[in-house]
Amino acid sequence: MNRLFHFALSPFCRKVRLTLAEKRIEVELVEERYWEQNQELLRRNPAGKIPVLKMGDRMFSESQAICEYLDEVFPEPALIPRDALKRYEVRRLCSWFDDKFHREVTCNLLHERLMKKVTKQGYPDGKRIREGAAQIKYHLDYMAWLLEQRRWLAGDQMTLADFAAAAHLSCLDYASDVDWDRQPLVKDWYAKIKSRPSFRSLLADQIPGSPPPLHYADLDF
Amino acid sequence: MNRLFHFALSPFCRKVRLTLAEKRIEVELVEERYWEQNQELLRRNPAGKIPVLKMGDRMFSESQAICEYLDEVFPEPALIPRDALKRYEVRRLCSWFDDKFHREVTCNLLHERLMKKVTKQGYPDGKRIREGAAQIKYHLDYMAWLLEQRRWLAGDQMTLADFAAAAHLSCLDYASDVDWDRQPLVKDWYAKIKSRPSFRSLLADQIPGSPPPLHYADLDF
Repeated sequence: MNRLFHFALSPFCRKVRLTLAEKRIEVELVEERYWEQNQELLRRNPAGKIPVLKMGDRMFSESQAICEYLDEVFPEPALIPRDALKRYEVRRLCSWFDDKFHREVTCNLLHERLMKKVTKQGYPDGKRIREGAAQIKYHLDYMAWLLEQRRWLAGDQMTLADFAAAAHLSCLDYASDVDWDRQPLVKDWYAKIKSRPSFRSLLADQIPGSPPPLHYADLDF
Repeated sequence: MNRLFHFALSPFCRKVRLTLAEKRIEVELVEERYWEQNQELLRRNPAGKIPVLKMGDRMFSESQAICEYLDEVFPEPALIPRDALKRYEVRRLCSWFDDKFHREVTCNLLHERLMKKVTKQGYPDGKRIREGAAQIKYHLDYMAWLLEQRRWLAGDQMTLADFAAAAHLSCLDYASDVDWDRQPLVKDWYAKIKSRPSFRSLLADQIPGSPPPLHYADLDF
């Protein structure tokens, strides 16, 4: 049985979970408390990071490398198109969300508000929360600008870029940190992706002591 | 004429420069003082980051997306092999260096020691420098462990993973932050990559007011 060592509110794990589910690859989810840096995790991945995917005897790490591999070995449905320019755009946007959005928004909001509580690593830093709350507006506006020109973020097909973005936004939505009224196009896009069967497992996530808001799992939010 | 908007000591720009040079794609280098976040940069790349590659009328950003695109459109010499497992390993290691190594080593050493001076953003933080100096040892050991089993970092062929690693290490070497005596296998690997024609432009880099040490451009270091 394939296993994914993950944490429910890791956007990188969520990107891999969405990819696995779209491709109907069955996987057992194993919670990994990565902040405890135990020896088992380092044995599975010397980088000490999640997600780690165990398929057969092999361990796979680094979410983008995992998703590219899965898309090559299990090509249906394709999450990265064939055309080189379209592939570039998918990868550019994956980096946008996994680097820039993560640093400017996810780290400031989710880490401060929720992960510090879960990992018992101190108290929220108000300055970082305000910074994240300011930055998310620009990112939502940028997404809306893209969606004015395209049906999905990277083009007219749903791709890995949509999963990268939805992985971050769904974690933030768990902490009520997304103002869905700001950009109706982004809300419509999220409603489409949220209603996919591959999203169900994410909507069922529950962090003990920190339940999600009611709208989190509601398809009509 | 193609143009690369870059900064000499950005490892991400260096990875792209090495890729362009290996593929013999001519490019004009234009220095981009990215920390000044000028409007021109934001027009070229809304993420406000370098490198930005201008080819024809198009702007390309995000170093990994650029390199993957170049490898698909200019396939010789191949920097990402064909086999899916080998491709995975190249991408895993690119992420290792561009995320983990960058965060643990490059940011702590290069940013504190050199970039703060160049960008006039305060004084070096001794705690971060000590942290980076401790972390680089583990990374050199991990590289040596890989090179005990393989001729190059990701396998028996030179790949983009070698360029990602060499891009970071060459920036750190500019600041005399690499102890080449620690792991002879890593030194041999770096000597091989340093002697490639594609590396020459990097070895000629000069930051005004902060010249490199004598061994930096010496192929017999």
